[in-house]
Amino acid sequence: MAQKHEASDSAVRRLPRYYRLLQELERNGQNHTSSRELGKRLDMTPSQIRQDLSCFGCHGQQGCGYAVTELRENIERVMGLEQPLSAILIGAGSLGKVVSENVHFEQRGFRLIGIFDIKPELIGKTLAGLAITPMHHLESFCAAHHPAAAVLCLPKESAQAEAEKLVALGVRGIWNFSHCDIVVEQAEVVTVHLDDSLMTLSYKMHNQT
Amino acid sequence: MAQKHEASDSAVRRLPRYYRLLQELERNGQNHTSSRELGKRLDMTPSQIRQDLSCFGCHGQQGCGYAVTELRENIERVMGLEQPLSAILIGAGSLGKVVSENVHFEQRGFRLIGIFDIKPELIGKTLAGLAITPMHHLESFCAAHHPAAAVLCLPKESAQAEAEKLVALGVRGIWNFSHCDIVVEQAEVVTVHLDDSLMTLSYKMHNQT
Repeated sequence: MAQKHEASDSAVRRLPRYYRLLQELERNGQNHTSSRELGKRLDMTPSQIRQDLSCFGCHGQQGCGYAVTELRENIERVMGLEQPLSAILIGAGSLGKVVSENVHFEQRGFRLIGIFDIKPELIGKTLAGLAITPMHHLESFCAAHHPAAAVLCLPKESAQAEAEKLVALGVRGIWNFSHCDIVVEQAEVVTVHLDDSLMTLSYKMHNQT
Repeated sequence: MAQKHEASDSAVRRLPRYYRLLQELERNGQNHTSSRELGKRLDMTPSQIRQDLSCFGCHGQQGCGYAVTELRENIERVMGLEQPLSAILIGAGSLGKVVSENVHFEQRGFRLIGIFDIKPELIGKTLAGLAITPMHHLESFCAAHHPAAAVLCLPKESAQAEAEKLVALGVRGIWNFSHCDIVVEQAEVVTVHLDDSLMTLSYKMHNQT
């Protein structure tokens, strides 16, 4: 893998799409691909593809393009999927249940090591193979296990304060499902805005040709 | 609102972010904003902002920028939020429950009019104020009510076939939660890839400075 260049936020957001497509090509037994093929499949120009991939140190070879497996492995490495980070999930209500049971944490760079909730009736129940722990154990848990990331499945009213608390406890990445933007220093935040996705569908349907 | 130009897929995906930010400025009582302020808040250059907004027929005025409420209303109109489309939800399991109860359909351009599931034990139960209907009523329901869109909360094995069936029944937009890419002609598909979002967090945490 060659030297990395500064990658734009959009290029970073496209990485998982490259990754999924390459996995699909691999499953279909394809050994090589080109920026033209990738571009066609992802609705991008070949030069955009080459530029994106070169940002992450992935360069094709003139005439034979990219080796599928090598490119997939490079992207996996760039995204850190080979070095899973420990994560805890806060909020074991219906949203937390769906997230913990439907997301493939292990294949996406994370390992869930704890699930927390404030509601007494949930304590001791199991979610994704983990016993739900009372919130007042969070501090001692973080001191003992140093989770790197937290998944926030909380009502938006409490999300910002909880995020600040988690960062103070050493968490340096937050996956936020709380329907609001969170601002914390010294941590990366990725927010899932389901409403944004739905509005995109609305736009597309109103501008359908 | 002036003439619209061809908007890129990325510009379309950014529209909801402009919309949310403008709502926030409005709530804070701010009357005017500039491409510089919007750019700073959204981590984009002022010229990118102006270019995006002009694609959707929204132009600022030299010296005083954009009127917040007018711009928010224009974007609302461009996204079609004022003309809600009817939608049905397929799959009333834990994922369907979270989606129907957590997403603000009415504020995002859609009105849920039916929820369907194949499991006999769910039939007649209520979700988001709607009785869950058996899947074998889908055809007659679509003939009577002509839903414009469908929300797919199905296992990925059945998603593609179900999407094709829905399009044949007149559905022209699909919001897909089924962990797989769906290809249908004559319909817009927006897929929620939670795993992509999680991998983005992994990348950011492994490349934290």
